[in-house]
Amino acid sequence: MGQDASQPAPEEVRRGPVGVFDSGVGGLTVLHELLVQLPAEDFVYLADSARFPYGARTQAELERFALQVADELLARRVKLLVVACNSATAAALPALRARLMQTTLGVEVLGVVQPGAVQAVAATRNGRVGLLATPATVESGSYARAIADADPFVKLTSVPCPDLAAIIEAGFPFDQHVVDTVRDYTTPLREAGVDTVVLGCTHYPLVRPMLQRMLGRRVNIIVSGDPLAHQVEHVLGARGLANPRERGEGNYSFLCTGDTEAFRALGTRFLQLPLGAVEHLELGADRRGAMAGAAR
Amino acid sequence: MGQDASQPAPEEVRRGPVGVFDSGVGGLTVLHELLVQLPAEDFVYLADSARFPYGARTQAELERFALQVADELLARRVKLLVVACNSATAAALPALRARLMQTTLGVEVLGVVQPGAVQAVAATRNGRVGLLATPATVESGSYARAIADADPFVKLTSVPCPDLAAIIEAGFPFDQHVVDTVRDYTTPLREAGVDTVVLGCTHYPLVRPMLQRMLGRRVNIIVSGDPLAHQVEHVLGARGLANPRERGEGNYSFLCTGDTEAFRALGTRFLQLPLGAVEHLELGADRRGAMAGAAR
Repeated sequence: MGQDASQPAPEEVRRGPVGVFDSGVGGLTVLHELLVQLPAEDFVYLADSARFPYGARTQAELERFALQVADELLARRVKLLVVACNSATAAALPALRARLMQTTLGVEVLGVVQPGAVQAVAATRNGRVGLLATPATVESGSYARAIADADPFVKLTSVPCPDLAAIIEAGFPFDQHVVDTVRDYTTPLREAGVDTVVLGCTHYPLVRPMLQRMLGRRVNIIVSGDPLAHQVEHVLGARGLANPRERGEGNYSFLCTGDTEAFRALGTRFLQLPLGAVEHLELGADRRGAMAGAAR
Repeated sequence: MGQDASQPAPEEVRRGPVGVFDSGVGGLTVLHELLVQLPAEDFVYLADSARFPYGARTQAELERFALQVADELLARRVKLLVVACNSATAAALPALRARLMQTTLGVEVLGVVQPGAVQAVAATRNGRVGLLATPATVESGSYARAIADADPFVKLTSVPCPDLAAIIEAGFPFDQHVVDTVRDYTTPLREAGVDTVVLGCTHYPLVRPMLQRMLGRRVNIIVSGDPLAHQVEHVLGARGLANPRERGEGNYSFLCTGDTEAFRALGTRFLQLPLGAVEHLELGADRRGAMAGAAR
């Protein structure tokens, strides 16, 4: 570790932002939890929406994209990196950790999969957990591994939901088609008798009320942003990196590789807080091997 | 009581809807909690928006309006009545209870004030509770009395918020003006060191993320719909009135004394679930002493 846990980091490092990234607006549900749970911190959110969706990319592409994004955020002096995207977490977390630990400060990287899996294992009473996620995330096996790591005796029922993220992004207010689609996806979970369901895609918290109604209120619904925000707080505390701000809330800002107005229009529904300015950023989408910082 | 607690009510009564009413869209945040927590029940929601806002009315007017609404909902065979409006609860709960207990079935009436007050008393650890509400609700003293009834040693800090409900109704996405207004109202609560805050207006759950961020995540925020939904479940259970539906979710429908399209447009933000059909209803707004059922 770059930081000695027994003493706080230099003040300018502690006052640095937490970096958060995703391929689009979905990760804003994670940022929402971070803003609500860690009001003293500053955040910078990078949406790589020019290359959305990440679910359709190869593992090698995702690793390359994630390293580009990480370089860009490091250049903006982030003190911690949060991967608010299930696909990028599954594909790139080890590579990101290896790269960011080599930096002078040893920047930690946290992803969305493990905190949600751990919270699901902690929450279940009957040992039957459900997962709703994109086909790519289900196929990656990342949740199955993380849950088995936490408790090998938990039985996981995974439901791939091919069109759910797109339907959530397209439609507000939600209509009967959304209700029927969500109900279809919950059927295998009800049949399996799960008492805990992990939302394995950052878009899905927007249909949480619908899911809770269909699954019944005694089923625990795990939204990754919640345990992830706890983990961020623990890491900042353990590394002496917590922002020393004593009054008022921190700042948050946005970088977007795609259309900034489209990002803003969609993003407000996902963040549930005012969005503020969105800055456009070029990351050299198709220049293989291009380094992020150099591509601007 | 019209029902013997030891045996269930007749099946046609158990299959009847729960009636919910408010002067507008605010009570939809209460209906939201009821739909999520009690998916097997049917609901009928009456928005008396022709006479909105109730906060500007006299106690005598509110009592008359509430009895009109109750008669209309009784004609639709509701098995329980929920007053999802702080003003109407403060002004009309005793009169409603007296009237509805005289009916053949002895229909129970539940309001939003007491469950929120009880939950706040149960949640506080330092005995300091905050209240955010409209000036009319603060002046009515209904929360102060309900909290003192639950624990006379709890210190209540009440903040009247004259324009907050109107700002919430007017603006989405929320902008910096909303943030600044909400922050001003939280200042006295931070200064008083409260660890629990009751949202004493049904509009305020829409700024809950903002409030949690400003107050800090360790402050409990009490949204009345949550404990009220628990109370509804207890009453239905105790009176043998729970809907025997075993599969699927119940139905919910809307009656509105004002502009149905305006209600629908605003309502989706408050309900967070598809709204479906909204039926227009005349309640004889200005005919003093008119009975609701007869006024259609």
